[in-house]
Amino acid sequence: MQTSSLKKLAQKCKLGAAALLTLDTESKNGTLRAMAAELRALSRAIIKANRQDIKAAQRSGLQRHLIDRLLLNDQRIDDMARGLEEVANLPDPVGETVSQWVRPNGLKVERVRIPLGVIGVIYESRPNVTVDAAGLCFKSGNAVFLRGGSEAIHSNKMLGRILQEVLKKKGIPPEAITVVPVTDRALLKAMLKLDGLIDLIIPRGGEGLMKFVAEHTRIPVVRHDKGICSIFVDESADFDMAVSIVENAKVSRPGVCNAAENLFVHEKIASSFLPRLVERLKKDGVEIRGDRKTASIVKGIKRATAKDWTTEYLDLILSIGVVNDIDEAIGLIRHYGSNHTEAIVTKDRANAGKFVKSLDSSCVMVNASTRFNDGGQLGLGAEIGISTTKVHAFGPMGLAELTTTKFVVHGEGQIRS
Amino acid sequence: MQTSSLKKLAQKCKLGAAALLTLDTESKNGTLRAMAAELRALSRAIIKANRQDIKAAQRSGLQRHLIDRLLLNDQRIDDMARGLEEVANLPDPVGETVSQWVRPNGLKVERVRIPLGVIGVIYESRPNVTVDAAGLCFKSGNAVFLRGGSEAIHSNKMLGRILQEVLKKKGIPPEAITVVPVTDRALLKAMLKLDGLIDLIIPRGGEGLMKFVAEHTRIPVVRHDKGICSIFVDESADFDMAVSIVENAKVSRPGVCNAAENLFVHEKIASSFLPRLVERLKKDGVEIRGDRKTASIVKGIKRATAKDWTTEYLDLILSIGVVNDIDEAIGLIRHYGSNHTEAIVTKDRANAGKFVKSLDSSCVMVNASTRFNDGGQLGLGAEIGISTTKVHAFGPMGLAELTTTKFVVHGEGQIRS
Repeated sequence: MQTSSLKKLAQKCKLGAAALLTLDTESKNGTLRAMAAELRALSRAIIKANRQDIKAAQRSGLQRHLIDRLLLNDQRIDDMARGLEEVANLPDPVGETVSQWVRPNGLKVERVRIPLGVIGVIYESRPNVTVDAAGLCFKSGNAVFLRGGSEAIHSNKMLGRILQEVLKKKGIPPEAITVVPVTDRALLKAMLKLDGLIDLIIPRGGEGLMKFVAEHTRIPVVRHDKGICSIFVDESADFDMAVSIVENAKVSRPGVCNAAENLFVHEKIASSFLPRLVERLKKDGVEIRGDRKTASIVKGIKRATAKDWTTEYLDLILSIGVVNDIDEAIGLIRHYGSNHTEAIVTKDRANAGKFVKSLDSSCVMVNASTRFNDGGQLGLGAEIGISTTKVHAFGPMGLAELTTTKFVVHGEGQIRS
Repeated sequence: MQTSSLKKLAQKCKLGAAALLTLDTESKNGTLRAMAAELRALSRAIIKANRQDIKAAQRSGLQRHLIDRLLLNDQRIDDMARGLEEVANLPDPVGETVSQWVRPNGLKVERVRIPLGVIGVIYESRPNVTVDAAGLCFKSGNAVFLRGGSEAIHSNKMLGRILQEVLKKKGIPPEAITVVPVTDRALLKAMLKLDGLIDLIIPRGGEGLMKFVAEHTRIPVVRHDKGICSIFVDESADFDMAVSIVENAKVSRPGVCNAAENLFVHEKIASSFLPRLVERLKKDGVEIRGDRKTASIVKGIKRATAKDWTTEYLDLILSIGVVNDIDEAIGLIRHYGSNHTEAIVTKDRANAGKFVKSLDSSCVMVNASTRFNDGGQLGLGAEIGISTTKVHAFGPMGLAELTTTKFVVHGEGQIRS
């Protein structure tokens, strides 16, 4: 595929976006439900396309857990279909009047929620992202330009074709959901140059992909980047609660961005709290790395290096530091953290307030696990990811975060003096 | 100045941002008022510094209207001071709970408005931008990294020094308002590489500057770009109203982004409406360019070329086209426009609704002049500019648009299953 054909695809996608502007909620929901039905009806074809990806992955010696991420079966296809039905059931953000007022000269000013236009999603591996992202973008009135990884290309193309067929049947330009049919880096670069056609790029993937995207585009990017999430256990913390929150934040799913990586403990409780905590974490198979004070309380652990405090392990490793007070904890979290998710365990309301106010992370928890920083868990419905970019949307991005607002002004002939 | 010193400046600015997080509204307002008083008290020093810029501009043969933009006098210094006082009187967006709800597991979820962090403002010529931008950023809890043009460097440095002195007296890190003391392009490039230190770049200036910024940064950019604003005069329009709106939109201040550049007229009224309109516009000194149908009604005008429909004249020139119906007008506006501001003049409510829904411009006017797309006119208080980027903030950006939201979650020990 040539750069010029890619541009044509994107132009058609943009025309699709214009058509979505005037679709009402009922037709969007009906279309999403029809897509779900069609995925289930065509599961054989999907699995057949997926098998090509799996075989290629096996031939190229891809690691087994990556092959598993790639695999589609009836259960996973049904999950995708249910995902679309859930999105159909969510409220439509488009057209909502966010606020309105009347100016002294009689102008009626409204801020109305509108789609962003065309959203470019760049992702790796899991083919379910194709359907999830298409569903969220469609419901929020956006056309989507989907560029998945080469390892899932047959699955993604088949899924894209099925969704497009449904759009066609409903009289909607099928290019409103476009799966880019090629995956080489040169063409990714060309896609990143389509400013004027793509309004927002959402990259989902490893650090290499993030960097590549940021380097090569002038289109606004909302990053879904790593989480160096920290917990501070304050002097007044309930020990049972603190142990359970730290364990949950570290152990329940260590490979995700809202898992905890660093723990800071108030020194007044360190010698009584840490042994209890470490006993539990060792049973969970967690490796502890600690600062000097921690190492003097918990024997036989590795010392945490500067690198440990800034590494997202995505693994059963936890770095622990003992701090003089909440201010030191806040300072260290600001220094080492990535503004993703932090938690404090405390009974002291003033300290909770200070912690919340001093940390500008996308989600700050008081007496709850960092694992709750997730669109579903926080009640946004579905999410397209967790933004670590402060601009536009910070934290979990649901349907509303895929929109913007415009001003609508009604007058009776007013002119400006 | 070296790249490394610039980075150190930005690091200090970021530390300043951390200090602003915990400032309360009263101290911010008091500081803004003290800044205003200090500007008035030190007007001699400001005018002296400004005179250096004026002399250099005269020596280098800068055009007279550009020198005028550069000039500071008592009146203009008082205007800047009053601007700061007005910002002090606006409500503080920071800390506002935008929405809140309780999850089935008892978690209390809030979305709270927080500052963005460090905002980089890149601008040209007018030294008042230094004070205006510093005031808006400070009130919204953001540190600001101000990079003005070389032609205003002495004025900007003096203004920066005065604002910093006030911060120091109030016990606030002075670097929260930093005027970058050098203006060469190499260092601008270095500033654009400060991701991790600067959260948002706001460029204000000509197309060359916009392009340079977009080319060289990975930091999110909210563009304040050109306005190809259009008006559609519908079949049912009140002619007097239409004439007055078109005249106001074109003539009242042709050099600004919300002035109208293109006009589309319904063909059913074209032959009766256009002569009336053109008679008025000719008196205002407006040059008309028209499509074939317009030229057959209005004799002796230049034909509008493809380039005319996409040019922001910033001058007394208007391109006029006659369209079959509202759909053609919408299609042309989508094709040629820049998503800035559009207006329809109509008595038909259905057509007004269609126009509003089909155009995703930052502001859509029904029976009002395009010139109202402005933070002050729409009631946002002050504005830092009019964003043409859909992402983050679209249209006039006031204080709230210089913030983001984070999630704050209060629990009683909840963990995720």
